[in-house]
Amino acid sequence: MDHSDFRHDGRKADQLRPVSIHRQVNLYAEGSSLIEWGNTKVLCTASVEEKVPPFLKGGGRGWVTAEYAMLPRSTLTRTPRDSVRGIGGRSHEIQRLIGRSMRSVIDLAGLGERTIWVDCDVLQADGGTRTAAVTGAFVAVFDALRGLKEREVIGQLPVRGFVAAASAGRVDGTVLLDLDYFEDSRAEVDFNVVMTQKGEFVEVQGTGESGPFDRQSLLEMLALAEMGVRRLIELQRDCLDLTEEERDAFPL
Amino acid sequence: MDHSDFRHDGRKADQLRPVSIHRQVNLYAEGSSLIEWGNTKVLCTASVEEKVPPFLKGGGRGWVTAEYAMLPRSTLTRTPRDSVRGIGGRSHEIQRLIGRSMRSVIDLAGLGERTIWVDCDVLQADGGTRTAAVTGAFVAVFDALRGLKEREVIGQLPVRGFVAAASAGRVDGTVLLDLDYFEDSRAEVDFNVVMTQKGEFVEVQGTGESGPFDRQSLLEMLALAEMGVRRLIELQRDCLDLTEEERDAFPL
Amino acid sequence: MDHSDFRHDGRKADQLRPVSIHRQVNLYAEGSSLIEWGNTKVLCTASVEEKVPPFLKGGGRGWVTAEYAMLPRSTLTRTPRDSVRGIGGRSHEIQRLIGRSMRSVIDLAGLGERTIWVDCDVLQADGGTRTAAVTGAFVAVFDALRGLKEREVIGQLPVRGFVAAASAGRVDGTVLLDLDYFEDSRAEVDFNVVMTQKGEFVEVQGTGESGPFDRQSLLEMLALAEMGVRRLIELQRDCLDLTEEERDAFPL
Amino acid sequence: MDHSDFRHDGRKADQLRPVSIHRQVNLYAEGSSLIEWGNTKVLCTASVEEKVPPFLKGGGRGWVTAEYAMLPRSTLTRTPRDSVRGIGGRSHEIQRLIGRSMRSVIDLAGLGERTIWVDCDVLQADGGTRTAAVTGAFVAVFDALRGLKEREVIGQLPVRGFVAAASAGRVDGTVLLDLDYFEDSRAEVDFNVVMTQKGEFVEVQGTGESGPFDRQSLLEMLALAEMGVRRLIELQRDCLDLTEEERDAFPL
Amino acid sequence: MDHSDFRHDGRKADQLRPVSIHRQVNLYAEGSSLIEWGNTKVLCTASVEEKVPPFLKGGGRGWVTAEYAMLPRSTLTRTPRDSVRGIGGRSHEIQRLIGRSMRSVIDLAGLGERTIWVDCDVLQADGGTRTAAVTGAFVAVFDALRGLKEREVIGQLPVRGFVAAASAGRVDGTVLLDLDYFEDSRAEVDFNVVMTQKGEFVEVQGTGESGPFDRQSLLEMLALAEMGVRRLIELQRDCLDLTEEERDAFPL
Amino acid sequence: MDHSDFRHDGRKADQLRPVSIHRQVNLYAEGSSLIEWGNTKVLCTASVEEKVPPFLKGGGRGWVTAEYAMLPRSTLTRTPRDSVRGIGGRSHEIQRLIGRSMRSVIDLAGLGERTIWVDCDVLQADGGTRTAAVTGAFVAVFDALRGLKEREVIGQLPVRGFVAAASAGRVDGTVLLDLDYFEDSRAEVDFNVVMTQKGEFVEVQGTGESGPFDRQSLLEMLALAEMGVRRLIELQRDCLDLTEEERDAFPL
Repeated sequence: MDHSDFRHDGRKADQLRPVSIHRQVNLYAEGSSLIEWGNTKVLCTASVEEKVPPFLKGGGRGWVTAEYAMLPRSTLTRTPRDSVRGIGGRSHEIQRLIGRSMRSVIDLAGLGERTIWVDCDVLQADGGTRTAAVTGAFVAVFDALRGLKEREVIGQLPVRGFVAAASAGRVDGTVLLDLDYFEDSRAEVDFNVVMTQKGEFVEVQGTGESGPFDRQSLLEMLALAEMGVRRLIELQRDCLDLTEEERDAFPL
Repeated sequence: MDHSDFRHDGRKADQLRPVSIHRQVNLYAEGSSLIEWGNTKVLCTASVEEKVPPFLKGGGRGWVTAEYAMLPRSTLTRTPRDSVRGIGGRSHEIQRLIGRSMRSVIDLAGLGERTIWVDCDVLQADGGTRTAAVTGAFVAVFDALRGLKEREVIGQLPVRGFVAAASAGRVDGTVLLDLDYFEDSRAEVDFNVVMTQKGEFVEVQGTGESGPFDRQSLLEMLALAEMGVRRLIELQRDCLDLTEEERDAFPL
Repeated sequence: MDHSDFRHDGRKADQLRPVSIHRQVNLYAEGSSLIEWGNTKVLCTASVEEKVPPFLKGGGRGWVTAEYAMLPRSTLTRTPRDSVRGIGGRSHEIQRLIGRSMRSVIDLAGLGERTIWVDCDVLQADGGTRTAAVTGAFVAVFDALRGLKEREVIGQLPVRGFVAAASAGRVDGTVLLDLDYFEDSRAEVDFNVVMTQKGEFVEVQGTGESGPFDRQSLLEMLALAEMGVRRLIELQRDCLDLTEEERDAFPL
Repeated sequence: MDHSDFRHDGRKADQLRPVSIHRQVNLYAEGSSLIEWGNTKVLCTASVEEKVPPFLKGGGRGWVTAEYAMLPRSTLTRTPRDSVRGIGGRSHEIQRLIGRSMRSVIDLAGLGERTIWVDCDVLQADGGTRTAAVTGAFVAVFDALRGLKEREVIGQLPVRGFVAAASAGRVDGTVLLDLDYFEDSRAEVDFNVVMTQKGEFVEVQGTGESGPFDRQSLLEMLALAEMGVRRLIELQRDCLDLTEEERDAFPL
Repeated sequence: MDHSDFRHDGRKADQLRPVSIHRQVNLYAEGSSLIEWGNTKVLCTASVEEKVPPFLKGGGRGWVTAEYAMLPRSTLTRTPRDSVRGIGGRSHEIQRLIGRSMRSVIDLAGLGERTIWVDCDVLQADGGTRTAAVTGAFVAVFDALRGLKEREVIGQLPVRGFVAAASAGRVDGTVLLDLDYFEDSRAEVDFNVVMTQKGEFVEVQGTGESGPFDRQSLLEMLALAEMGVRRLIELQRDCLDLTEEERDAFPL
Repeated sequence: MDHSDFRHDGRKADQLRPVSIHRQVNLYAEGSSLIEWGNTKVLCTASVEEKVPPFLKGGGRGWVTAEYAMLPRSTLTRTPRDSVRGIGGRSHEIQRLIGRSMRSVIDLAGLGERTIWVDCDVLQADGGTRTAAVTGAFVAVFDALRGLKEREVIGQLPVRGFVAAASAGRVDGTVLLDLDYFEDSRAEVDFNVVMTQKGEFVEVQGTGESGPFDRQSLLEMLALAEMGVRRLIELQRDCLDLTEEERDAFPL
């Protein structure tokens, strides 16, 4: 089958949209990134606060927490603000996912009693905002932690691995990597994978709202998403301009 | 390895806790169930409302939506009520999961322009409340739909399959079915599977907050959870006291 | 007049619905009860917290506070949750009543600087949920306090008396004990009495929304409700399985 | 016993504080009153809206609803506003009481499909704000309804009776009429009676938070409060400057 | 042009409505005033609290903050309460203006670590509630501070000047002082000036919602409003019954 | 005085920071702009909705409304989101200002029964976010309206003029144009002017929180701000790439 015929934007089934990540896009944040992933654009900042939530006080360990929101006109038609209608279930889900994904590769003991606040704000949405947010957030967090090390606030970079996310899905029976909004709204299954540079899973989520899916589809989507994450981690590495030491610490 | 030594309650690695489901436990609800799953107890009701949300009006299709909450002392120490502190992200996530799970097996066109409200209230929590809620909710929904058919409001039972959920996890490197709270708080990975009676997935969620997990663990947990769901669907069938016709419609 | 003809469920005018109270129905709560009163079912828990609200700090006295809520399908048609629409005036009124009723018989100095949180959740409502909640709550609170004494946290049981509640009302000019929902919705007057085992009043509330009522009706309803409370306190005593010492401390 | 010695402000046990009611104190409201009751001052307005709440639409009957609030510095020390901390349980209780009291004497069918909004705002509080609010609210409502009749919007004054409220209480074992804040904070029992000009009860509420009370106290407080309400209804009649026809319609 | 013909209430273009200010109208507040300005009536209280907000703790300086609200029937038709619909943008704006105006003339270091809470509640609104609130609030605050000095809590009156506010506007091309509601709803420009007794500006706000305005109008409105403020400060001085010493401290 | 010595960033007293405006920065919005004003960056979108608020229904006129928010890390230290802590008074004030400013130059009758939603989201804040928001918003709104005309939804461009905003202030006694955050936090007076291309005022706001200011300062700040607005309107014109016809319609 010739997939170049198939996808509405000419991509192959196993092709990501063009992704670029820009670092240090915010004057104040300890770490920041703007990730442009096709027409999806997410601004990520990582802010260091020198205290932890009450439940962690005195334990010597740090915390990473995330918030996610969409600008009102990031969407095709205007969506009312969270400050007006409350934070919806979808946003709650995504920001919890971002937080867990970051914590899975951060050494919280090494971070010490401080909190990293990750803010992911969607400037424009064309599908895949959660994978873009996870992928961009890691760059911002890495930079913030690198800053702490450079300023000798901490001795070691408290990072155990790189983490990025990609989605796959099944549309009209065909398994595709990285659905955009047009494809996503037609998809039978939606699959999100958060993975480290070692190929280990942090989070696997597959949903078949328009109907269930079988094990074969699951494995195919998993394989596509893994491939996507590997490419994204390469992009993160390029963008972060790793030192030799860092490159050795996080081999692909 | 002798797993009877391993689990704190004497279960084998691939053994569910004792599960019982009672139907028709509420005088008013069109469908209801009380599911007792080890020490976890969830009261589920399915309420039929003769209208749909605005975004579906006039389309001839129905809707299924779910709400999930925990009673304040369903937990080891008292948790403040949602009405006092707001609905948290975790509850949002679970109620969205229950809603998607029910919709995946309900024929919304066959349901007609009406809404099924599913309410899952946790009376006592000892781990696995989301899998108990999905499993119990299906029984309540099935009964509510059966009632609509019996009263000839609809011609056909708008059910495409049975659905239930089970969890698996990895504790100290061992993969286990159906973690209770004690095990869950020690787990490295938590895996939830929502599946139909045909063995197709509706939802697959795996999270490795204390560290990533590899493909082998994923496949093992998937296999265990599948086994668990099969047993739960048998329990649903027994509890629902299927007619011959219904048994034929949903073969295992 | 032959009242067995009169009431739709065959009760006499001065007859309570069947009431049963089950203790220790919750694995975690220091005290708990499930009260089934006709078709009304209320789950009550009493949770001990080792601190008091700010306004009592350092005074050596404890506090008892209550929350009351109805499950969405405890009612004939589904009622939206408090977490969605806010706690309504009726719930506020009832939970304040439960709190005052408990405090009227608890020795707050003897309790010491701790709080008893009473949670009354209505699983099914058929009229009389506030009287059921007060009556069931006392059993849960008594058990929680007994536990504190048994664990020698406090030296004496800080209880000055038993407390229970019953309602009466006037329907079609006849005064009746313990209205169910069917009767209540037709009642001209609604009368609630909270009383101790010594026959002293803690709370008396009479409301004539469909029209005022005279002194004669008031006295008749008071007499009926008193009779009802006396029977309920006997049920509480049976259910709590009083020791001889306790029986002597709270003579009828 | 010489009660002039007993009460801190020189009143006898069965004496109300000085009460004055001023009508038509608001330029816009269809009815309004300012009731000054000792140091307690409540501003009441009755606003006519030409529609009813959804649950009454099309039934040809009207509605009366009330809201009650305290200005922040109506109290000894400043109380945060309801708009900042939410409407508390006490305010909810009082506004529900005011609404029921008004509805008990208004002919809702005669009112037609319109709503009377009663607003009671406490400018200064020295105990007894709920009885002052009920008593002042009736004057405002009466005036609003009189206006509807004068403008021939309705044919008959839809009023079945006058209604006012008074409190009594027991302090140091003595039963007293109309407690002010100083007495109320020392009272063992607090008793509120809402009554019509015919001496029929609309609402009777007795609470013994610092301890239960016996039947004898109840009857004494009831008698005192009745006497108080009778005097207040005379004040309402004087203030409303009744026509001969109105005087005949509501004989004492 | 003969302005006595022009304004609907017979005022000249440069004439304020009749204004009277009554002090000490609240039994509990450290300072209070009722300002009646034509048909606009605002009740102002100043409450002293012996602590400051967190951001000022330990700095030795005090704070002045204000809240502003309208009673529901202060308006032509009933407005829902802030506690029901939230504090609107307009109220937010006005209470921030009142707070800034007071702080501009209070010596916060001289006040010491305490907060003055200013509450301005509009009993009746006929245009100009913000200027009435600022003007009345100053009287309440002055009295509260005077009380602190009299009780020797502070050594010096921490007041640097008097402050009052007046509005001007342009209606049908004519510039007028102090618009009432009827004029304001027809105004092309609305101009508010907060000024001290020395003729210095604290706040200048001009808005041309129905169309822009030129520099000439701006200067004319400024001149009219200045004249208005001067008269209002004279009223404040009379009402506050200044001592000779105080009169010398704040020369006109 | 040599102002190049004076300002911390080397600007002259009457010099704006570098300002650039980019159009059509959002894929979906009918109009959009990104305004970069020194280090302040605001993303503005204008969304067309084919209905008006209830109070305008059926009147044939349109509406323009605005919302303003800051991203959490647009500020030096992270600010909690409005969705978490509520929309503050400052944001309310600014979004009301933006709305009024746009409405002052839009012909609402010419717009027809539709709403323009203006969203101004601050990506980075270094003082002057309200002037940047007003200035950028106009570009977005103009583009949205131009689109309506091009698609022949409306016959005429319903724009009566250009509008932009600039601030001035007094720092250490010197009047300066366009304060950045460093200067603003030291300013004695803050002055904002919203003005049209004809030099007419839409909004004038001057605040002297750290102390009052005299007429001379007012006039100087007004003059500086006017100069600033003129330059900004030139920038808007360049950015919007006016047709000859449009240039004639809005002469400077």
